[in-house]
Amino acid sequence: MRYTKELSDLIEEFAKFPTIGPKSAQRMAFTLLRKSPEQVKKFIRIIDDAKTKIRYCQKCFNLTSQEICEICTSSSRDQKQICVVESVKDLIALERTHEYKGVYHVLGGIISPLDGICAEDLNIDELISRVQTHLQANEELELILAIGLSTEGEATMLYIKRLIEYLKIETGKCNITRLAHGLPVGADLDYADETTLAKALSARVLA
Amino acid sequence: MRYTKELSDLIEEFAKFPTIGPKSAQRMAFTLLRKSPEQVKKFIRIIDDAKTKIRYCQKCFNLTSQEICEICTSSSRDQKQICVVESVKDLIALERTHEYKGVYHVLGGIISPLDGICAEDLNIDELISRVQTHLQANEELELILAIGLSTEGEATMLYIKRLIEYLKIETGKCNITRLAHGLPVGADLDYADETTLAKALSARVLA
Repeated sequence: MRYTKELSDLIEEFAKFPTIGPKSAQRMAFTLLRKSPEQVKKFIRIIDDAKTKIRYCQKCFNLTSQEICEICTSSSRDQKQICVVESVKDLIALERTHEYKGVYHVLGGIISPLDGICAEDLNIDELISRVQTHLQANEELELILAIGLSTEGEATMLYIKRLIEYLKIETGKCNITRLAHGLPVGADLDYADETTLAKALSARVLA
Repeated sequence: MRYTKELSDLIEEFAKFPTIGPKSAQRMAFTLLRKSPEQVKKFIRIIDDAKTKIRYCQKCFNLTSQEICEICTSSSRDQKQICVVESVKDLIALERTHEYKGVYHVLGGIISPLDGICAEDLNIDELISRVQTHLQANEELELILAIGLSTEGEATMLYIKRLIEYLKIETGKCNITRLAHGLPVGADLDYADETTLAKALSARVLA
């Protein structure tokens, strides 16, 4: 005899989430059972709302409950500065800095042949047509490639850069930039890995 | 701008569970969004089922979807051997050994004045009347106190023992036992804490 069926089903469902082991799943199930019926109803409603209402922004692939997300529709955002990120999590991380006033484009991953992810699986075509629209309107555009410096990240950035260079648009201009890499703020030199330190050294600036 | 409302609500709900930090909650919310609508519906149904169907066994306070749990109704279980445990989790841990063939009584906690839990908050009265019923039927009963050896655990066991001794029942007999404490199987001596080692030494048996 184990837990009653309803309870073991619940534990099993929680254990399906990443990083949730059997012990955590059990703890979560018991916590849920201790909640009031109203709290559980609220939890169910929130799950249902999230699944039925949240979708991808038609323009930048951010998660939103509208057709076009808040950032894309905001009038205070510079539509001619597009920051290309891997995921919505990265978008939120950049938003937390409160420094960036442009818009975004979420790729939905990076090119990674080993994981079976190729360029067609990502929102790269949509990015190119966004860039093209701006260029055809004779605008000067900045594309910030804010992707992590892994091998796959580098390849993805290079791929996007080449694609845009091959566009051969005669009007407009697209400046492609990437995030600065170097020592994290507050980090000790002797804790930094060699690659980061080498990057920081080669990208040194005037003091 | 942060996540869209529905998504931040979902993350918040997951973060309400114990040991689930903001990062894990975020990861769980994204995992849920990636599930198919059918999978999410199933998840919701399982949560709802668990909350509406699971209740306490009227006899032993195990969690069950019936009036009386499977263990209490089982004919292969010895009804005259009652194992007293702190929680349903402990009951399941004992069940996993496949060694115990008696029934249980779940206290729903242990006496802990510092946490504001006194004897009246636990299912001790119900235990006493169960014991009384057996004794009045002139039966010989074994009560196994399977509670951890913390100060609160010790106090709870002592409290139950005294209560039963004070019952002054003239018929029947109630043998009160407790779990053996000592070195865990497979454990190294130098990793055992002093109290466990001292217990193991004082409770030594003939080799």
